[in-house]
Amino acid sequence: MGKHYLLNLYGCSFVLLNDEYCLIDLLENAAVASGANVVQTISKKFEPQGVTVLCLLSESHISIHTWPEEGRAAVDVYTCGDGNPKIGCDIIIAQLYPQRYKLECIGR
Amino acid sequence: MGKHYLLNLYGCSFVLLNDEYCLIDLLENAAVASGANVVQTISKKFEPQGVTVLCLLSESHISIHTWPEEGRAAVDVYTCGDGNPKIGCDIIIAQLYPQRYKLECIGR
Repeated sequence: MGKHYLLNLYGCSFVLLNDEYCLIDLLENAAVASGANVVQTISKKFEPQGVTVLCLLSESHISIHTWPEEGRAAVDVYTCGDGNPKIGCDIIIAQLYPQRYKLECIGR
Repeated sequence: MGKHYLLNLYGCSFVLLNDEYCLIDLLENAAVASGANVVQTISKKFEPQGVTVLCLLSESHISIHTWPEEGRAAVDVYTCGDGNPKIGCDIIIAQLYPQRYKLECIGR
């Protein structure tokens, strides 16, 4: 059984949510801290703003989609195995300084 | 507000769930049928079995992780905008012939 965390962040800085390379580093660090292995990462910066990063893990995936103009981001941290994806969520929350967030865990 | 469908499939064929290129086609077709645009797709075939496919969409993402030895797959179809991700889920269900499945939709 895997654990899939759905994390919605609100009230984040435009600049942080629009920084593609910062978000790549953040997701890869969160994956490793969760005990996962990153196989491949892809990303896309949208115009006029917004970023998506997807990390393919040996243990499933981690992703972020951002809407900087709304200060909003949607994160998924889904891992199977012995890792602890909650640690990855905690790192992302700590680094993106949301005014508020909603975290939900689904076993699957 | 986006719609994130979490689809768990059970009792699927080993062969279907272990066919990387078939699953890439399936996800890309499901994305287009949902009204989404595929920006980039990555995939990984694991040893001794199992496949992950991630499609980065202009409207978020679609993913599948398979455990052929258990006949099990976990699919996410997450889109923002005017598309209809439920259509993509229906296509995936129709093509993977699960004995049973669980479909959940989360607004985010």
